[in-house]
Amino acid sequence: MKPSSILSFQKLNESIRSFLVNLQLKFKTKRYPTFRAFTMSKLVIVGTVAFDAIETPFGKTDKILGGAATYIGLSAAQFDTDSAIVSVVGGDFLQKDLDMMAGKGMNLEGLEIVKEGKSFFWSGKYHNDMNSRDTLATELNVLETFNPVVPEAYKDAEVVMLGNLHPMVQMGVIEQMNNPKLVVLDTMNFWMDVALDDLKKVIAKVDVITINDEEARQLSGEYSLVTAAKKIMTMGPQYVVIKKGEHGALLFYKDQMFFAPALPLAEVFDPTGAGDTFAGGFTGYLANTEDYSFNNMKRAIIYGSCLASFAVEKFGTERMESLTRIEVDQRLHQFKSLTQYDIKLN
Amino acid sequence: MKPSSILSFQKLNESIRSFLVNLQLKFKTKRYPTFRAFTMSKLVIVGTVAFDAIETPFGKTDKILGGAATYIGLSAAQFDTDSAIVSVVGGDFLQKDLDMMAGKGMNLEGLEIVKEGKSFFWSGKYHNDMNSRDTLATELNVLETFNPVVPEAYKDAEVVMLGNLHPMVQMGVIEQMNNPKLVVLDTMNFWMDVALDDLKKVIAKVDVITINDEEARQLSGEYSLVTAAKKIMTMGPQYVVIKKGEHGALLFYKDQMFFAPALPLAEVFDPTGAGDTFAGGFTGYLANTEDYSFNNMKRAIIYGSCLASFAVEKFGTERMESLTRIEVDQRLHQFKSLTQYDIKLN
Repeated sequence: MKPSSILSFQKLNESIRSFLVNLQLKFKTKRYPTFRAFTMSKLVIVGTVAFDAIETPFGKTDKILGGAATYIGLSAAQFDTDSAIVSVVGGDFLQKDLDMMAGKGMNLEGLEIVKEGKSFFWSGKYHNDMNSRDTLATELNVLETFNPVVPEAYKDAEVVMLGNLHPMVQMGVIEQMNNPKLVVLDTMNFWMDVALDDLKKVIAKVDVITINDEEARQLSGEYSLVTAAKKIMTMGPQYVVIKKGEHGALLFYKDQMFFAPALPLAEVFDPTGAGDTFAGGFTGYLANTEDYSFNNMKRAIIYGSCLASFAVEKFGTERMESLTRIEVDQRLHQFKSLTQYDIKLN
Repeated sequence: MKPSSILSFQKLNESIRSFLVNLQLKFKTKRYPTFRAFTMSKLVIVGTVAFDAIETPFGKTDKILGGAATYIGLSAAQFDTDSAIVSVVGGDFLQKDLDMMAGKGMNLEGLEIVKEGKSFFWSGKYHNDMNSRDTLATELNVLETFNPVVPEAYKDAEVVMLGNLHPMVQMGVIEQMNNPKLVVLDTMNFWMDVALDDLKKVIAKVDVITINDEEARQLSGEYSLVTAAKKIMTMGPQYVVIKKGEHGALLFYKDQMFFAPALPLAEVFDPTGAGDTFAGGFTGYLANTEDYSFNNMKRAIIYGSCLASFAVEKFGTERMESLTRIEVDQRLHQFKSLTQYDIKLN
């Protein structure tokens, strides 16, 4: 299937959806809950769609499919949401990867294809402990002049997931949206080093920020994650999610905290994309449930952690591409038995 | 109160207890559950009772009360258990510290006082991240010739907590016990380096081992904690507890896993004794409840984590000495809200 045919297929899809939405609006009463399934919540996903070359103690890959938006989209695809990818690739990008993404239900209307350009390329090598890595190559290519365009039909999406990109690009997406209910921002230390002022402007606009522990410390200047989260909340976000890799994730909201562990695994094959997969599960679940309360965010954190535990089991996106809902449900049971206990409190 | 008067007070206590136990045995029917309170479960605690001098980014101390058995005992004292300390101190040990320990209900009959000797002394300096430290001084003193003697009245204790000491000393205690129901071993990398064969003999005799993540890796030769725990189980223990400091603790049993986070704190003042406090809460709770099932071990892990979160709030044993059951209960509520969620599983 060519990109053009994917796009027209998506437009057809879109028309069917609009028809069903209108139908649902017409008949929206508590008697017709089944119509809910046809009007999936919209999720806008911004981030890189790219090639990665990865080396871990278990082996190495040539250029394979990668990128933040790719992992986020694959993870969010586990939920009944209508996700649109806003990104850019070059003419070297593979048709089979576009087909796979479209096949997972991702709308690719906002994925610009610059025929004469090359896709963003990242190459990295993980150390033996899998917790640290060296970046071997970063070729921005088409990303250098990327001007994100949110498809018209997705400007009213309730949830926006801003994957790791230049803060100005992230801001450009926020400005195109019509009053979304939840904007989630992922970023990294690199942008704190080179574009802190721009980053702070975006942080002021979002509801949730997801960063790792070291980045939370860098951004806040505080060592304690509790104090760091409180300080970051004063910059804008109501919710702060601190990702600690194999040590789990913390969710902060006002004076409340929630913690989800990472599932301890016998083998971590390739950590690439784990954070993005977490973010995709988190936002996919929230978009699907349309409930942005603290209690539902807890569930979203558990889903995010659960999905991230799959991402690391194989190289690149391989595991996420084959992942089924049954496997996700089984692993949720594992998470429950890992974390739940029964204590009588006084 | 002089040690001699403490001991005679303890003997009086012991007589009263024996009388009540006999009384209970005589009248043991379901009609008299209140007698249970008088026959507290016995817990034998082996480990150092010592002086520490600690330096952290928040300040430094002169010689203050420290030692594994001290922290374990203070933590176990939060439960209605009859704990006996098996250890040794020198003539320089302070009466006020003996009084405090006895006042917390610790039986000190097995705490040998070598009048002409000096107490074990450890001095350390924590780095800024509080996760690593340099040992500045280790003076074994009376510990060099320590020959542990379990008091006669405690040889039938159900639970034995073997704090970090030379494996031969730990073995010496196991050999004096009359068939305890649960033996828990704490150890450290130092004994793996200098006395691995002796350590393996002790490990083969215990039900639970508690070690930190790096030690689990060293002992098993496996990087993955899941694989490491499985391998350690083949050495003897049915249960493996891996302590990850600020990243929480993992409990492994057969193919099951349980995880408890450490409570994220705004300020960690002094991490000394946190692991021992965890072990004291873990064994104190198990001795108190006399239930050694996996489900009850989960609760014990939560209690251990909860108590350890207090230990680090002040220098040395200060916080544990002032800790009340009401504060523990309040913090258990915090643990519950930190970890509990409600997800519908398919």
